[in-house]
Amino acid sequence: MSQNIPRRDFIKNTGLAGLSVGLSVNTIKAFAPEQMTKVRLGMIGVGLRGQSHLEMLLGRKDVEVVAMADPDERSLASARQLVAKSGKKAAVEYGKGNTDYKNLLKRTDIDAVLIASPWEWHIIQAIDAMNVGKIPGVEVCGAIKLQDCWDVVNTSEKTKVPAMIMENVCYRRDVMAVLNMVRLGMFGELLHLQGGYEHDLRGVKFNDGITPYNSGVEFGPKAFSEARWRTQHSVDRNGELYPTHGLGPVAVMIDSNRGNRMSKLSSVSTKSRGLHRYIINHPKGGPNHPNAKVKFKLGDIVTTQIQTTNGETIVLTHDTSSPRPYNLGFRVQGTNGIWQDNHAGEPNAGLIYFEDKSKPHTWENTKSYMDQYDHPIWKRFDKEAAGAGGEGGMDFFVENAFIECIKRKTEFPLDVYDLATLYSITPLSEKSIIEGGQVQNIPDFTRGKWQTRKPIFCTGHNDY
Amino acid sequence: MSQNIPRRDFIKNTGLAGLSVGLSVNTIKAFAPEQMTKVRLGMIGVGLRGQSHLEMLLGRKDVEVVAMADPDERSLASARQLVAKSGKKAAVEYGKGNTDYKNLLKRTDIDAVLIASPWEWHIIQAIDAMNVGKIPGVEVCGAIKLQDCWDVVNTSEKTKVPAMIMENVCYRRDVMAVLNMVRLGMFGELLHLQGGYEHDLRGVKFNDGITPYNSGVEFGPKAFSEARWRTQHSVDRNGELYPTHGLGPVAVMIDSNRGNRMSKLSSVSTKSRGLHRYIINHPKGGPNHPNAKVKFKLGDIVTTQIQTTNGETIVLTHDTSSPRPYNLGFRVQGTNGIWQDNHAGEPNAGLIYFEDKSKPHTWENTKSYMDQYDHPIWKRFDKEAAGAGGEGGMDFFVENAFIECIKRKTEFPLDVYDLATLYSITPLSEKSIIEGGQVQNIPDFTRGKWQTRKPIFCTGHNDY
Repeated sequence: MSQNIPRRDFIKNTGLAGLSVGLSVNTIKAFAPEQMTKVRLGMIGVGLRGQSHLEMLLGRKDVEVVAMADPDERSLASARQLVAKSGKKAAVEYGKGNTDYKNLLKRTDIDAVLIASPWEWHIIQAIDAMNVGKIPGVEVCGAIKLQDCWDVVNTSEKTKVPAMIMENVCYRRDVMAVLNMVRLGMFGELLHLQGGYEHDLRGVKFNDGITPYNSGVEFGPKAFSEARWRTQHSVDRNGELYPTHGLGPVAVMIDSNRGNRMSKLSSVSTKSRGLHRYIINHPKGGPNHPNAKVKFKLGDIVTTQIQTTNGETIVLTHDTSSPRPYNLGFRVQGTNGIWQDNHAGEPNAGLIYFEDKSKPHTWENTKSYMDQYDHPIWKRFDKEAAGAGGEGGMDFFVENAFIECIKRKTEFPLDVYDLATLYSITPLSEKSIIEGGQVQNIPDFTRGKWQTRKPIFCTGHNDY
Repeated sequence: MSQNIPRRDFIKNTGLAGLSVGLSVNTIKAFAPEQMTKVRLGMIGVGLRGQSHLEMLLGRKDVEVVAMADPDERSLASARQLVAKSGKKAAVEYGKGNTDYKNLLKRTDIDAVLIASPWEWHIIQAIDAMNVGKIPGVEVCGAIKLQDCWDVVNTSEKTKVPAMIMENVCYRRDVMAVLNMVRLGMFGELLHLQGGYEHDLRGVKFNDGITPYNSGVEFGPKAFSEARWRTQHSVDRNGELYPTHGLGPVAVMIDSNRGNRMSKLSSVSTKSRGLHRYIINHPKGGPNHPNAKVKFKLGDIVTTQIQTTNGETIVLTHDTSSPRPYNLGFRVQGTNGIWQDNHAGEPNAGLIYFEDKSKPHTWENTKSYMDQYDHPIWKRFDKEAAGAGGEGGMDFFVENAFIECIKRKTEFPLDVYDLATLYSITPLSEKSIIEGGQVQNIPDFTRGKWQTRKPIFCTGHNDY
């Protein structure tokens, strides 16, 4: 690979790309040896989120950022500076419009791409990447349409190129401690889980075109960064638009697609008020600002009930247009205990209760449990994760998993079926809301393989 | 009334019973004068809950407990002792089986009845009471079948006898402070609300036939108190079996049946594990205990999504079979703020946030808000409520409203339409779960009157 073996030959020779399809966890050795020492990476999308990934990946000795694509010159310039600052070789740039990433994909010196582009490009670019033998790591969002989810699965199965969904909250320290407690059986049999994206994004969805956050009421072409593209989704769509941060960790805990399956959902939405209100109350907005006339379709709070084949239920909340403290609202409840998260992942900010440990009917603070059951992977990589920064160290883990699995030719812990399943929540929730909350079937993207696939996310076999 | 005017003449002469049908809030004078100085009461059901009401009502000078009905001699005996202890005249007893309450209802010296019987009797007895001109105050639960809800409404409209649902949590001190804040506009326009009955009732659903709580694994005929009848509902039914404590306060805040209406619901249920597990793990149970063979239909956690005509959404949780601290799980969220309740109503145990008051993106403790916005009715009756005891003073308020509204011939703050609406959640949720979570329409029990009815619950006009 890093010795310039053409990519397609690599795929053929090593069979790496087939891992996510055919390999069972039993055949994976713990800490499988490296098959390649360096991953040659292309970045697709180097906006603020892509730059955050880029900065961390530049710090890795086992990553070479060969090229990067972004139609926005300001983003490319910032990314270029990050590469220069790192002392590494300049990355080849592809900045000629939205489709120049296709030229990046034509390179023969790239093994994988990290996709951190606007939502509507994720699946298109992931599919394009797999079709030319590049392994995509795909940032999170929801699918634009349900067929996208099938297309990404079908392409991966056809090309035998794996894909990973870069869901970092699965690696949040308190979430992983709770996962550890779940697997130790401390909660008993799981019954009910909750999660969400409850994050006041109004200052992200609008800006002044220069400063990305809290600077104005523009969106679309007059805005910068996420407000340029993300906000239009709130104009055009009403649904669970950002399901993965809340649902990804829960999906891991219930062994989604690995012995269990999320099978049905039903979504409801409140009226839409927050974004309009933000515009008319903002010092740079007001009732006469042109954007005060925009009708936002996205309800302020969207709630989704999910049923699983194993009999758990999940409540997922999307809440990004209202004033509120950040809280992903996790709840994990089983026959022996319950965890309730009300803050932003601080170890001492949750409530927990175990029948065989706690004073009857009385919440305990989470701190001592978070310390005692800190997941082994966090103990192992504490220094690297903390040193690397990036959303409380979570980004270190999700990038590390992506890179190490490629190097070691082992299965991704969050694979193309997880990608399709988590992404599918969005179009299914939109359809449910249009139908007044009617239940939608969640497709089985594994086509039955969920019944025999074994849990793999940080199970001790392949802990990246 | 207390001068032995026959009940039916009273109804005819005063028109009291028509209040809930025809009277608008505008015609009610603040602190309407008493039309009668004493309410002559019959108790139907004097188990532990009925005795709690009885004890408080015996402390009131404006209540005369004339009679009481209960088929259980042990309950009657305890109630008899409470009356004796109060120094008041002994109540006439009706203890000959389940239908002896009908003889109590034949008395001409009773104005009203308080119904605290097993769930399956509430609507039957309320209808029987109205049909003989007695005003029922009905303890909370959910309906056995949807038609019950129509029957109670139709009977009240036909007889012109009002009915009150005795939902005490509407009067919880923190809940009323939040209601106060809602009405002061502090939350902005309401968007999303949550509530539930999240209460580990395993030690209530089973006992040893002698001691009511935490004493064994019997239910049905071999058990005492609630375990004798309540647990069978967990065998026979899967749904939101106890909706009113979580939903009542929320319904008041959104002006349910008074300018707004809960219009649709969808329910999902987890598997059923907790009650079986309790039996097999209990020292008096075990895997060979006969009750270990019982199949419980009730899922451990039932979640219900509710939509309203005004565009709010509500999530309601029923969670009574798992180890967990008590928490009704209230959340009130509007365009300007959010309240999250995680404990049992302690003023300093919640989280709150207002855009125009709080440090950005940061929860505040609720204490200072609960103190500052303590509802005027709690300030007014603080001494009586605290002195009376009874579930944190809530019972004082719900009883006081029942008695004072009868004395003053004013509308009940929680009327027959609220009773029908809140009770209807149960059979509708059962149907939804049977249909895999499909949406059910919640009937308009007001037959359109919700569009013009004005809020009345502690609005300052008639604050009981």
